[in-house]
Amino acid sequence: MADPDAGIPFRKGHGTENDFVLLPDPDGALELTPARVRALCDRHRGLGADGVLRVVRTAALGEPIDGQLPGAEWFMDYRNADGSIAEMCGNGVRVFARYLVEAGLVGAGAGRGADQLLVGTRGGSKRVWFVDGAEGTESADRAEVAVAMGPVRLGGQSIATVAGWEFPGVLVDVGNPHLACVTDVPLDELDLTVSPGYDPADFPSGVNIEFLTPPIDGATRMRVYERGVGETRSCGTGTVAAAAAALRHAGRAEGKLTVYVPGGRVLVTLSGGEATLTGPAVLVAAGELSAEWWRSLSG
Amino acid sequence: MADPDAGIPFRKGHGTENDFVLLPDPDGALELTPARVRALCDRHRGLGADGVLRVVRTAALGEPIDGQLPGAEWFMDYRNADGSIAEMCGNGVRVFARYLVEAGLVGAGAGRGADQLLVGTRGGSKRVWFVDGAEGTESADRAEVAVAMGPVRLGGQSIATVAGWEFPGVLVDVGNPHLACVTDVPLDELDLTVSPGYDPADFPSGVNIEFLTPPIDGATRMRVYERGVGETRSCGTGTVAAAAAALRHAGRAEGKLTVYVPGGRVLVTLSGGEATLTGPAVLVAAGELSAEWWRSLSG
Repeated sequence: MADPDAGIPFRKGHGTENDFVLLPDPDGALELTPARVRALCDRHRGLGADGVLRVVRTAALGEPIDGQLPGAEWFMDYRNADGSIAEMCGNGVRVFARYLVEAGLVGAGAGRGADQLLVGTRGGSKRVWFVDGAEGTESADRAEVAVAMGPVRLGGQSIATVAGWEFPGVLVDVGNPHLACVTDVPLDELDLTVSPGYDPADFPSGVNIEFLTPPIDGATRMRVYERGVGETRSCGTGTVAAAAAALRHAGRAEGKLTVYVPGGRVLVTLSGGEATLTGPAVLVAAGELSAEWWRSLSG
Repeated sequence: MADPDAGIPFRKGHGTENDFVLLPDPDGALELTPARVRALCDRHRGLGADGVLRVVRTAALGEPIDGQLPGAEWFMDYRNADGSIAEMCGNGVRVFARYLVEAGLVGAGAGRGADQLLVGTRGGSKRVWFVDGAEGTESADRAEVAVAMGPVRLGGQSIATVAGWEFPGVLVDVGNPHLACVTDVPLDELDLTVSPGYDPADFPSGVNIEFLTPPIDGATRMRVYERGVGETRSCGTGTVAAAAAALRHAGRAEGKLTVYVPGGRVLVTLSGGEATLTGPAVLVAAGELSAEWWRSLSG
């Protein structure tokens, strides 16, 4: 029997200010209800975060996806702040990988050289590695983290509207749908306190919308409105979509681009139709949730 | 020498969703710069909170106020999220007192019966005590916390404006200035995303503004716009000001009133021109801030 008064261990961290509570749960014993996720992510009555990353052994997951994740010892069980389940998070998986190494859950050399590090997600196994002094990304005395984000598919054109103004953009599928709009309008002038308009015929399940500057000197700046969330300080797949749109704007299908978001900057590489996202991952704090508080959330 | 890689201990808690990071610093050794307070309170790149409560022995405070706090062994060094210093916080002091007892920094009987508990603040020593099954406050299996808030002075009339509409109110001094407006307008209809207007001749240093329902069955409901902050989920002195205005509205100078705020509810007692505030205090988590992260904030 577990001690009912033992606290629930957690870590808090962020990637370009997209922030997470990590819950180490190697054996899948934690009763992580949507109500508990919501309370934990509540920025006043809980710890506060954009999402929860449960750290569970893939073998203990108890979901059919288990057998489809060869080589991924650890699974990132991502929950949105509203308690719902998400497939993947490009910023979250970097913080997740940093935690695996710091906590000694994988070898110290994992994700370096020939020592592969695969993280299981509901979007499949993701390869993650550490990059010392990564080019074009935040200066740090720590290695940054790269993740293979998988295929990027550019589609046709569509239009976003903000305050009646039309912004032509390109459809980008990064596992989830994006509309990336290159614009000369100063980004600071866009009102993203409400959702931009879009054509529901193009995006029947909604869409994440990026506004970005034309690329100059290998960099673009963007703001993002996330489907169902609102404007955020960073969105991993959004930076990939923005890089793909910016490169196409420059007449290129492949290349590297630094993407500045409100929460920092990342490096996106597009090659052979696949994307790599490289950026910082910061662990801010470690501790235990009050057992009494955790229990109070079960009802 | 302290271990440079040792984490910085913290606690996270809230009172009616007014939330705080507590930093135990008995000997006053912590270098708590405004930049560190801002990073700590940042809800994406830090832990996130409305403010920081440094827990320091009054004798180790090193401020002239030290000698003016007889009987207060512990001092609540309150910092606003913007890094500035504040005198007192009615919600914070409850969480602070709960922490003192749980951490064993005062005797288990402190704040019960004849065993006084005094908390030092820049607004003077505040008497705090624990109330089991407090009347009219949130149900909880835990004692609520009461604090003597000191004198409440009602002044003349003034007017707040919201979207061009005028709301007559009463000036209330609870150590800081308030304008408390009893209104029949449904509170949910007020737009408090921008500051209500007020007469700067009455409030040369700004004012906290409460909108509240006329008292019914010993209770009122309020919303508050805090000076320099915006609308918040709770404001300790604001609930006292609201209770004083609601009681005057009912033709009374003394009495008890339950005050519902967006973040919960508290009980305010007015007697002999002094106020007592009773309400919940919740400790959510305990842990350590990353030493590396803390160091990175010094520059």
